[in-house]
Amino acid sequence: MAPIAITPPLNIEPTVSELTAQGIQHALSKSAPSHQKSHNGLVAKVAQLDASLLTTALTTSPRSVPDMGSAEMASQKVCTDHMIQAQWSEERGWEAPSLQPYGPLSLMPTSSCLHYATQCFEGMKLYRGHDGKLRLFRPQLNCKRMLMSTTRIALPGFQPEELLKLIVKLCATDGPKWLPKDRPGAFLYIRPAMIGTDFALGVQRPREALLFVMLTCFAPMDDIPGGVKLLASQDDMCRAWPGGFGYAKVGANYGPSLVAQGEAREKGFHQILWLFGDDCVITEAGASNFFVVWRAKEDGRLQVVTADLNEKIVLDGVTRRSTLELLRTRLSSTSATAIRDGLEPVEVVERKFTMLEIEEAHREGRLVEAFAAGTAWFIAPVGHIQFRGRDLQIDIGADGLGGQYTARVKTWLKNIMLGEGDGIGNEWGVVVDES
Amino acid sequence: MAPIAITPPLNIEPTVSELTAQGIQHALSKSAPSHQKSHNGLVAKVAQLDASLLTTALTTSPRSVPDMGSAEMASQKVCTDHMIQAQWSEERGWEAPSLQPYGPLSLMPTSSCLHYATQCFEGMKLYRGHDGKLRLFRPQLNCKRMLMSTTRIALPGFQPEELLKLIVKLCATDGPKWLPKDRPGAFLYIRPAMIGTDFALGVQRPREALLFVMLTCFAPMDDIPGGVKLLASQDDMCRAWPGGFGYAKVGANYGPSLVAQGEAREKGFHQILWLFGDDCVITEAGASNFFVVWRAKEDGRLQVVTADLNEKIVLDGVTRRSTLELLRTRLSSTSATAIRDGLEPVEVVERKFTMLEIEEAHREGRLVEAFAAGTAWFIAPVGHIQFRGRDLQIDIGADGLGGQYTARVKTWLKNIMLGEGDGIGNEWGVVVDES
Repeated sequence: MAPIAITPPLNIEPTVSELTAQGIQHALSKSAPSHQKSHNGLVAKVAQLDASLLTTALTTSPRSVPDMGSAEMASQKVCTDHMIQAQWSEERGWEAPSLQPYGPLSLMPTSSCLHYATQCFEGMKLYRGHDGKLRLFRPQLNCKRMLMSTTRIALPGFQPEELLKLIVKLCATDGPKWLPKDRPGAFLYIRPAMIGTDFALGVQRPREALLFVMLTCFAPMDDIPGGVKLLASQDDMCRAWPGGFGYAKVGANYGPSLVAQGEAREKGFHQILWLFGDDCVITEAGASNFFVVWRAKEDGRLQVVTADLNEKIVLDGVTRRSTLELLRTRLSSTSATAIRDGLEPVEVVERKFTMLEIEEAHREGRLVEAFAAGTAWFIAPVGHIQFRGRDLQIDIGADGLGGQYTARVKTWLKNIMLGEGDGIGNEWGVVVDES
Repeated sequence: MAPIAITPPLNIEPTVSELTAQGIQHALSKSAPSHQKSHNGLVAKVAQLDASLLTTALTTSPRSVPDMGSAEMASQKVCTDHMIQAQWSEERGWEAPSLQPYGPLSLMPTSSCLHYATQCFEGMKLYRGHDGKLRLFRPQLNCKRMLMSTTRIALPGFQPEELLKLIVKLCATDGPKWLPKDRPGAFLYIRPAMIGTDFALGVQRPREALLFVMLTCFAPMDDIPGGVKLLASQDDMCRAWPGGFGYAKVGANYGPSLVAQGEAREKGFHQILWLFGDDCVITEAGASNFFVVWRAKEDGRLQVVTADLNEKIVLDGVTRRSTLELLRTRLSSTSATAIRDGLEPVEVVERKFTMLEIEEAHREGRLVEAFAAGTAWFIAPVGHIQFRGRDLQIDIGADGLGGQYTARVKTWLKNIMLGEGDGIGNEWGVVVDES
């Protein structure tokens, strides 16, 4: 394989939402080196991640596929027959990736990922469409975000399209069996991850790493009776901070949230609504983005509001981004969809907003709907928020599937994922060739 | 083993520095449950960590001990012959721990520790004294802090003295060979760690965990020619924040710091001096505590200053704590040591202090010394700080081993660790029985 020359750092600092070609080059240049100074001072180029070098070793002991709705399916413990692995080292760069039977990793106890959280991941889904086709949903965005995350956590860079090719190969291998055509609407959860595998305890950039991808059975999480119940975080708890890493899908954002999450669950809530600062700024709901639909205080206009990404304390979610884009296109004041369906147009707002504003809107009867958006939860209506001991009940519609805007977004997205989309966004569903 | 009844949560919120019996009970009660509601609603107690159940399987392929000063010794990649492992599950509690040959861990790719940073660790050393004895330094403090860390990261609790017994057993097994008596002053680095081993991708408290302890060869890091060079963190970087987890020894504090650390190293610095907030409050130097010796602006009194622990963004270091205690005892205005050695007494101050204050003291000729303190670096004189492009040179003594106060603290501690202490603090060295 021809080593790729790396462009020197550009004089820009792209945000995670700027997943442009320039942003990727910048991230590649900032991530763990894919070039290496040799002893004579010359730069020796090392191998890039290259999906065309994939080796394949199929399993000889295939697993059985759990029944739909079974406890096994819901356990999140069942993976498919195969996984992708690719090893990286500072000296040699990326080795040829492999598609191999799913099974345990052998890691030295000193591995960097076990002590210093040199780890990041992505969450995606593979859908069996109503038209019988397998689809990914905007997978390019996940692969680009994975590069942003590896860059933030000092793990090696790669060309996102190479990761995508590896994911597609794994989906094409295990999809036909694990998402049979008689299960339209079913999905598998795709987990790409990268970990630092250096076996030296010095606190430093990993000099060895492992990329791996697996497919897991996952039950739907978006149909919670009564809607999602959120407990607003207490003033002494904080998920992310400006200058930190809240925008990246790194392990370090998750483990430290589990104590608060566990306490919330013991009290009957599903997740924490993470607030930031004395102003109680809204950031995320659990590990999902959070949206409200309300009428603006000033003039009663209908608005969909979610946290902006400016301070980099909120994840640039693919579901979040898609929701915003669909709403802007389909429910703006000039949208044909809005006019055809008789829906009141909405203004889409990304800004800093606070729990105090939500409470005020609720008190004044202006809070219309709320929902969490993410790959795992999909679009999940929020029915209840507890904040400083006060309880807000929020409408989730007569059927419990969400108010009309929440339900509409969910239907649009589901249709795209399952091959029934029409119009804008339909190209977001990427068909996986099973032949 | 008799299951131990767990006291219900006490109405206190101990800080990590309050490692009292009450604090331990509280942490145990808050950590992942060691009791478990059964289906009939009764509380079933599960097994506690119990060092008396240790099983032993010695290696049949012993490794060779690297030479002092060899590259192998400095690589931080050589572990001793054995390790401790103990498994925990929510249902059964702690299994019997084992002392077994050092070797790789087999982890499912879905393990919680690889995705959600459910991991924490400790850093300690085992010293070969000049009197021929093996010693640990205040190991009780590390074991208690480990419990604080497991509690913060949603991993299971344990009685700290049981962990200490396991560490002592491992040291007694491998210490005689790996720290031979003809190497007085040599040490091994001890790394206890705990990881979440749940193989399910749901973001939740781990229901399975693994405790392990290993011993690693490590070169001294406290004799850096010219002293440690620190690069003050930029305004857009933040290591820890109030409501976060900066006080705990969890992996999530380390990985996210590696990019900044790597950039600092490329510029010729050893570590980042982590500042917090617009005021540039001093927190930590790399992964060590940071001290300055200066003359107070008001009256010229000599002071040793380090960050307080109030906001829980700074690690309650064992070396930090010991330094403070020794200085308070030995160099107060009434101290016999100070009088005998003709040293000017110092006032010991734990408070919020800023880089701007350090810069002012430096400008006004009041900055006397600075040093980093931690287990890995021990007491390392700081000779240079770069802050917003401005360079501060700090005296590290004629021999480069630190100014007189830095050098004095280092000598006191080393003497305790190597069995040559006198007076207060001598009991901090805990002898490991090799018989």
